[in-house]
Amino acid sequence: MTHADLRRRAFDANQALAGTGLVLGTFGNVSALDRDAGVMAIKPSGVAYDSLTPADMVVIDLASGGVVDGALNPSSDTPTHLVLYRAFPGAGGIVHTHSEYATALAQARLPIRCLGTTHADHFRGDVPVTRPMREDEVASDYEANTGHVIVEAFTAGGISPDEVPAVLVANHGPFVWGPDAMTAIEYARVLEFLARMEVTVRMVAPDAPRPAPFLVDKHYLRKHGEAAYYGQQTRGRRT
Amino acid sequence: MTHADLRRRAFDANQALAGTGLVLGTFGNVSALDRDAGVMAIKPSGVAYDSLTPADMVVIDLASGGVVDGALNPSSDTPTHLVLYRAFPGAGGIVHTHSEYATALAQARLPIRCLGTTHADHFRGDVPVTRPMREDEVASDYEANTGHVIVEAFTAGGISPDEVPAVLVANHGPFVWGPDAMTAIEYARVLEFLARMEVTVRMVAPDAPRPAPFLVDKHYLRKHGEAAYYGQQTRGRRT
Amino acid sequence: MTHADLRRRAFDANQALAGTGLVLGTFGNVSALDRDAGVMAIKPSGVAYDSLTPADMVVIDLASGGVVDGALNPSSDTPTHLVLYRAFPGAGGIVHTHSEYATALAQARLPIRCLGTTHADHFRGDVPVTRPMREDEVASDYEANTGHVIVEAFTAGGISPDEVPAVLVANHGPFVWGPDAMTAIEYARVLEFLARMEVTVRMVAPDAPRPAPFLVDKHYLRKHGEAAYYGQQTRGRRT
Amino acid sequence: MTHADLRRRAFDANQALAGTGLVLGTFGNVSALDRDAGVMAIKPSGVAYDSLTPADMVVIDLASGGVVDGALNPSSDTPTHLVLYRAFPGAGGIVHTHSEYATALAQARLPIRCLGTTHADHFRGDVPVTRPMREDEVASDYEANTGHVIVEAFTAGGISPDEVPAVLVANHGPFVWGPDAMTAIEYARVLEFLARMEVTVRMVAPDAPRPAPFLVDKHYLRKHGEAAYYGQQTRGRRT
Repeated sequence: MTHADLRRRAFDANQALAGTGLVLGTFGNVSALDRDAGVMAIKPSGVAYDSLTPADMVVIDLASGGVVDGALNPSSDTPTHLVLYRAFPGAGGIVHTHSEYATALAQARLPIRCLGTTHADHFRGDVPVTRPMREDEVASDYEANTGHVIVEAFTAGGISPDEVPAVLVANHGPFVWGPDAMTAIEYARVLEFLARMEVTVRMVAPDAPRPAPFLVDKHYLRKHGEAAYYGQQTRGRRT
Repeated sequence: MTHADLRRRAFDANQALAGTGLVLGTFGNVSALDRDAGVMAIKPSGVAYDSLTPADMVVIDLASGGVVDGALNPSSDTPTHLVLYRAFPGAGGIVHTHSEYATALAQARLPIRCLGTTHADHFRGDVPVTRPMREDEVASDYEANTGHVIVEAFTAGGISPDEVPAVLVANHGPFVWGPDAMTAIEYARVLEFLARMEVTVRMVAPDAPRPAPFLVDKHYLRKHGEAAYYGQQTRGRRT
Repeated sequence: MTHADLRRRAFDANQALAGTGLVLGTFGNVSALDRDAGVMAIKPSGVAYDSLTPADMVVIDLASGGVVDGALNPSSDTPTHLVLYRAFPGAGGIVHTHSEYATALAQARLPIRCLGTTHADHFRGDVPVTRPMREDEVASDYEANTGHVIVEAFTAGGISPDEVPAVLVANHGPFVWGPDAMTAIEYARVLEFLARMEVTVRMVAPDAPRPAPFLVDKHYLRKHGEAAYYGQQTRGRRT
Repeated sequence: MTHADLRRRAFDANQALAGTGLVLGTFGNVSALDRDAGVMAIKPSGVAYDSLTPADMVVIDLASGGVVDGALNPSSDTPTHLVLYRAFPGAGGIVHTHSEYATALAQARLPIRCLGTTHADHFRGDVPVTRPMREDEVASDYEANTGHVIVEAFTAGGISPDEVPAVLVANHGPFVWGPDAMTAIEYARVLEFLARMEVTVRMVAPDAPRPAPFLVDKHYLRKHGEAAYYGQQTRGRRT
């Protein structure tokens, strides 16, 4: 893929993000990765969505973190994206938003529990919340360390970043990834929807029983993996 | 009715559903029944609403569940629709959504109580929530079994599916039906509105007294049945 | 005013109501009164807002309740409007909606308390909720009796219907009035906004102290009555 | 700056405010200050946003409060704006709204706590709520006294009005300021977003721990002050 193609992919995704209602002002950013070439393209820092052009996207080297191509400052969250791409081999696009309910839950330091099939259709289990960052982690390399506490949440929790491609950073907000940037945005939309329902369920039935694991797996595996039979890709496999 | 007419009816209803805001992404589906011909038409599985055409609708035999006409996979929820049409003779259209508040209540395993006249104008009593499904019901024939637990909720609860044409499937979401697909969509919109109010009332007045049964019946019967006097169909009957 | 003028006034108000988002489907209605002529015009029953024409408005005699002019059934809530116009001499327009939060509070049987200046700018005190209706009141002349329990709430509570031109009917929804139909709609919009804030305050601070009566009166009287100095009508009076 | 330029600035800001959804009806107002000339321009009182023209803006002398230029009554909140401009040298634009959640919190007499990075990116600490006003403060010079209790909240609380450019007036609503009117509107939008999240966090996790002060400062200082590295103005400074 050329840098122009990658920038176009990142640009299209940032435009799509602006249309979702998940971002306020210049907040939020999407990046797109070309893993074979070892580069990602990301939104520039603090630029309004409606004035972005594909050429504004900044191309960054995945290994070194250096700017390979581009005249503007990359998003201040660039080091977080890099850490996630390095740790999560299945990630091809990453979205960061301050979407309202996911961010409120991040502020409450509460995970988005898997409470039903809407969740299980997309995420195979709870979307975790990171531990709070320490003073030394904030003092230097803050944005890279944000990535490290995310990775720690998945490693320590034994969670697969491919099966649960989202996280809430404590007192901050959600990061969401996927095989490509557009899928990551779709997951970010679903995440906000699930966050809204999590809030409602906590208010009306804080002790509501969780769905059985076999129901969660049924829905996740109906859409994902070898035996999936949802959609049209698997035409003929359904019995 | 020709297959083309039935597909058009199902297509129009799915387009209408997409415009209600009750569905997110490719979620949700509507079917339309031709009871005389013993066939229904339903949305194909996992296809985006804005790319649907009438010809994409899949025609299914009510008795056997087999595809009669159509090139695409039918909705994965097809067996649920079939079970409901067979059990509920008054149903001519069925809608399934993951609309936010109805789904949140399904996740909380709470019914939508009949708390006022807006509810009683449409549903003569609480909209029930199903019992959780057992592992064996999920393991095989999951979608048909979803229909069976719905039917069980009405049978066990002594509820008329004509007077209360909606249900919340535990940890899943709402199914709504009506004499035709468009009416089912209208009921689905009202159901989401009632779900929103149910959540609010639970939060501000969890012990609020229920309206008297005579008020519920007054409103339900003002609009439905022999003595109805709401609207223009009954012109002249009002005293 | 001719019947045509009065119908046009009622029609314009019903069109305006449809644009507020306060009504769902065919719910809700507005009437406009010509007190000098002793007639009101009201929306026909169960007709969709987008198919209404001025000629569809039904002209009703205030004293007898009989249809003076019009081919359609008037709104089923017509007797409620008539009772209110007869009891409240300051009312020149009446709106009934099932707007979400006002209706939820009606279902919770909770008043909309005067909690701040937004409320006091429009309503000089709490918006009351009626007592539940008795079986005999529902069994016959239900809609007229709805009006009577509204009037009772104001009489028994010592509330001025001019200073608090709105009420929540228990387990039903709001009725709102004003000097004319358009003002009544504006009050209905404000009422829903106040209902939303009432719900929020009840959830985050159920024991929040009320504003002092002198603050309520300051805001109400800044906009209403002899010493009002808000807006442009009083140009020059402000010191 | 000419009076025409200042009026245009105030007009543009009031038009922008109307587009934010933060105001209902004729509520709310924005003013723009020309500190060198010692004059501000403000919206006239009680005029609908869609009928405003630049010439309707009223030019007021900052020192005396007298109308310098303009044919209409200035906003009834004019004396509040004047007190704030005199006390807060960094303010170049002031917005007053009755935006829903900020107003609900003002009615609940609760501050908007700094619960996360979205807040810290804009406000370096809690947005305070004023004490209730006394009867004598309401009885005379009410609007100027509203300004005085705001200033008192910052002085008594040791809060910098440059670092926390917003306040909730108890039982009333928010006032927000900034270096210019358009920035003040942007802050008012963010404030409402933060108020919504404050309400959600209070409901789902009333005892949630606050973010550490070093995290708040990191985010505030990443965007504001000498060492800021967010956005494009600081291109090259980032290490």
